[in-house]
Amino acid sequence: MYRAPLEDIAFTLKHVAGLEAALEIGRFGDLSDDLVDAILEEAGRFASNEMAPLGEIGDRQGARLADGKVTTPDGWPELYRNWREGGWNGLTAPEAFGGQNLPHMLNVAALEMWNSASMAFALAPTLTMGAIEALASHGSDALKATYLAKMVSGEWTGTMNLTEPHAGSDLGVLKSRAERAGDGTYRIFGQKIYITWGEHDAADNIIHLVLARLPDAPAGTRGISLFLVPKFLVNEDGSLGPRNDVFCHSIEHKLGIHGSPTCTMIYGDGRFDPAGSGQKGAVGYLVGEENKGLACMFTMMNNARLAVGMQGVAVAEAATQKAVAFARERTQGKAPAWAGAEKRDGMSPIIEHPDVLRMLMTMKALTQGSRAICYACAHAIDMSHHTEGDEARKWAERAALLTPVAKSFATDAGVDVASLGIQVHGGMGFIEETGAARYLRDARIAPIYEGTNGIQAIDLVMRKLPLSSGGEVAGFLSELREIAERVATSDAALGETAERLRKAIADLEQATTWLLEAQTGGRVAEALAGATPYQRLFGLVLTGAYLAKGAVADVGDGGEAKRIALCRFAAENLLAETAALKDRVISGAASLLAAHAVLS
Amino acid sequence: MYRAPLEDIAFTLKHVAGLEAALEIGRFGDLSDDLVDAILEEAGRFASNEMAPLGEIGDRQGARLADGKVTTPDGWPELYRNWREGGWNGLTAPEAFGGQNLPHMLNVAALEMWNSASMAFALAPTLTMGAIEALASHGSDALKATYLAKMVSGEWTGTMNLTEPHAGSDLGVLKSRAERAGDGTYRIFGQKIYITWGEHDAADNIIHLVLARLPDAPAGTRGISLFLVPKFLVNEDGSLGPRNDVFCHSIEHKLGIHGSPTCTMIYGDGRFDPAGSGQKGAVGYLVGEENKGLACMFTMMNNARLAVGMQGVAVAEAATQKAVAFARERTQGKAPAWAGAEKRDGMSPIIEHPDVLRMLMTMKALTQGSRAICYACAHAIDMSHHTEGDEARKWAERAALLTPVAKSFATDAGVDVASLGIQVHGGMGFIEETGAARYLRDARIAPIYEGTNGIQAIDLVMRKLPLSSGGEVAGFLSELREIAERVATSDAALGETAERLRKAIADLEQATTWLLEAQTGGRVAEALAGATPYQRLFGLVLTGAYLAKGAVADVGDGGEAKRIALCRFAAENLLAETAALKDRVISGAASLLAAHAVLS
Repeated sequence: MYRAPLEDIAFTLKHVAGLEAALEIGRFGDLSDDLVDAILEEAGRFASNEMAPLGEIGDRQGARLADGKVTTPDGWPELYRNWREGGWNGLTAPEAFGGQNLPHMLNVAALEMWNSASMAFALAPTLTMGAIEALASHGSDALKATYLAKMVSGEWTGTMNLTEPHAGSDLGVLKSRAERAGDGTYRIFGQKIYITWGEHDAADNIIHLVLARLPDAPAGTRGISLFLVPKFLVNEDGSLGPRNDVFCHSIEHKLGIHGSPTCTMIYGDGRFDPAGSGQKGAVGYLVGEENKGLACMFTMMNNARLAVGMQGVAVAEAATQKAVAFARERTQGKAPAWAGAEKRDGMSPIIEHPDVLRMLMTMKALTQGSRAICYACAHAIDMSHHTEGDEARKWAERAALLTPVAKSFATDAGVDVASLGIQVHGGMGFIEETGAARYLRDARIAPIYEGTNGIQAIDLVMRKLPLSSGGEVAGFLSELREIAERVATSDAALGETAERLRKAIADLEQATTWLLEAQTGGRVAEALAGATPYQRLFGLVLTGAYLAKGAVADVGDGGEAKRIALCRFAAENLLAETAALKDRVISGAASLLAAHAVLS
Repeated sequence: MYRAPLEDIAFTLKHVAGLEAALEIGRFGDLSDDLVDAILEEAGRFASNEMAPLGEIGDRQGARLADGKVTTPDGWPELYRNWREGGWNGLTAPEAFGGQNLPHMLNVAALEMWNSASMAFALAPTLTMGAIEALASHGSDALKATYLAKMVSGEWTGTMNLTEPHAGSDLGVLKSRAERAGDGTYRIFGQKIYITWGEHDAADNIIHLVLARLPDAPAGTRGISLFLVPKFLVNEDGSLGPRNDVFCHSIEHKLGIHGSPTCTMIYGDGRFDPAGSGQKGAVGYLVGEENKGLACMFTMMNNARLAVGMQGVAVAEAATQKAVAFARERTQGKAPAWAGAEKRDGMSPIIEHPDVLRMLMTMKALTQGSRAICYACAHAIDMSHHTEGDEARKWAERAALLTPVAKSFATDAGVDVASLGIQVHGGMGFIEETGAARYLRDARIAPIYEGTNGIQAIDLVMRKLPLSSGGEVAGFLSELREIAERVATSDAALGETAERLRKAIADLEQATTWLLEAQTGGRVAEALAGATPYQRLFGLVLTGAYLAKGAVADVGDGGEAKRIALCRFAAENLLAETAALKDRVISGAASLLAAHAVLS
């Protein structure tokens, strides 16, 4: 059973991602090291003891739809109530609406724990938090007064309605429409798919944020507006009014995250008449300005993508814990260096076999590397909010640069680690009751939603590398080189880490230069052809660099030997891949683009 | 829907794996090129039209157990009858028992098609073929006379009973026991798990081959005997007699291959009294000699492992077909070089996006590379049976060398390609009705069973590299170098293929030398630490080499341009990984073995 890895989480937050330094200079007000520890510990207790035991039933039972009502798995409504009453939903929300206004880093660490316990369950608050952020940033005072406090407390949940059957990665072609009702409100019509927690039985009201197009809107992405559409209208006194004209038409039968209802939502087909006037359409309220809906979405996209990255970290952590525990208990064969066989039926625990150890160490390194990247991204977001002027702009660029890497590398790691976890279990890994297979099934969606990892790669190469004319990425590479130099003068137990890391950073730098030149030279297709290997290269180098940063952090907590060994394993076994990734970026485009004919 | 890729299959058999040359010198009797084509075409027709349409219902419905009876999915018993009446079960079986004694290559190609259509269904004949082979090689004349003809026709199916809860990869500790009954027969007692198609409703009788231990047997693997245990005893006239004392206790709830019943079988607990004498135990007949059971298993292991490799090829092929078809139809965004957007809502088919093309090309290259490796392995098996003396020994070594690579590389490719196939589908890939997720769920077992891929790597490094004191692998490397030299003087459209391939082969050679020296130097743990990356390196080099062999084969069938483009993509985008894999073998062991402490 999952136990929150509080030591790894706290260490990474403080000594790798930068929280400790920020606390020391009072960057986050009176937030103290002790309070951080207390929050993490309590989140870990809830995730391990309350949430994790209900993860498996959520997978087995799934969400069920009957007569337009969605029933979540046994025990989940109570779990949700207990969770929100713990105040977890408003960790980073504005204090004016009942939130605690804590740094995102803490929420990201908590999200990791919720997702390790049950990714399907954690999706509900993840979506609500995104809706809170969009509303807090762009909603009118009236909308915020009516909705935000209940959403911050978690009494009402939120959803994001973007996708339509024809419009997934390309939102410019969405067809849902909005009409002006004449009283300042709107009427919404259309069908939205893949709406996470679009309907359920765990909250009194559900606040949908819906992208739709006004009749006189320009074509494409410049003609999309954002609307708030509550499941139940809200009376002036804050009590719930009539049912709005939106309902859940069906829920998807998915590979994983079975407990999370993935809904097709129908707006404005006349099933309900909320205004009592016969006027058709779901009642909606504009968020932000007309035709500026996509911009509203973009302001929250960094956080949402990072939250999905945390799903990758979380599932990787849970899968690793399970595989390590199994590999210590299960005995098969006799490993060459194993001395204790006579006590165990002539066999060794399989963790003693080098091949199994390699799988476990790879899982551990990818998990810890992904965690560090995501926490560092959260730190940059926090710093951009707690600094001003050029410094804030610099941190915002850092967050923008790291976001696609965090989302893609961590979610790919989630899939790879979960798959290795099955392999470690042997035949038992394929049996559903073992629980290892669920991690792969759950993890598999994360590289897809909230912008596929291919979309992330395009974002990284085409929009993030050019930030400050390439200055942002150049500055970041300098920081990475400083880490490598610190390693070079550090513990001899780090083996070849310094030279391996230098080499990997040089590969990243060369690939970066090549991509920037390809763009300025108008060779866009070539740049796009290398985007995915480049993104992977970036994540792998960061894994090596952040593990090294942790390994040389002199904090005297007794964990040094483990961190050094993990760092060295990553440097001497995983980083060798950077040369191949660089090569794919720089030399792979011609044969890829020429290969179109193979598939014609 | 899956269509058998007859062109790729026939080309690879004939011009890459060696069938054409063998036919030309009459190596397989009067088997002609035309007959090969006719057999492939008919198999393709059955797989595409009859079998594939029933694959999805098999996944959805699964096998069900009630009152000790297993019901297979709707339509499967009829499908099985039609299939065996087509003569497909006995393609390679001895003519004396109704088989057609055709080369294994043809059966392997047919297995690919059955597994593409439905891996869960194809497992039934796969296991029967293994049982036929074990019985034909080691059974007494009496046993063969009673059982073989019905098994070759497919009227009776076969199973392999090896695994017990405590004994998976390590069969030496199995506990099922056999007692001598005093009349030359035996009584079998024990529990076996993960028995594929151990009980079902598609055949009149089920012939179990069971590993068990006699009371006076030596400990470990030298004390294991093999027994034939029929579900129904067979009367002297060949009719079915009483029910034997074996039954299916439960079936597993698995990640994939839902239509294939994975059974826990109980032997000799007294539920049935087949002898009518009150003497306990399931009636069993010795196959081969007492305590030599594992040797009997080993003779069929090459074929069984290759058959599992074909599952990887097969699922990869089906997943690739599905993804390519989707990527041609689905439109999102506008690709830089796409001219036809005005006809398609301003969007491009996603296959036009370089990132999607990269995924599809990677899928295609891994599929085609795995196919070539597996067919080459089948060819070596065939040649070892159709040659004599030193030549036969040489071909047997080649088959032995290739088997672990074929099994592991193809099954890893199956998982990787199926996972990429989901990614290509975006959100739809995660919805079960789309069908892309099933391929990942099915494929995930293949790297585990029939010897995990980690076990294959140990076999490759510790037992196969030392064949002929390293002479076998050295000779094989020379043949690969000859391919690279042929490329160097071939079509300029092959780009950097020749130099990339030379470099990759050199990496493989260096890693090989290092591993052989590690073994002779007594550094066993270091050799084992590098076994998995070495095995991957081997498969990747073979992929590059066999795609190149196909690309330079001058057969004038019009497919040259496609083969050249695929070969070049693999050489310039995939082969770069060989340097990293070599590095892991040669330089990765120290940090891996030192990392044990991280997990303690």
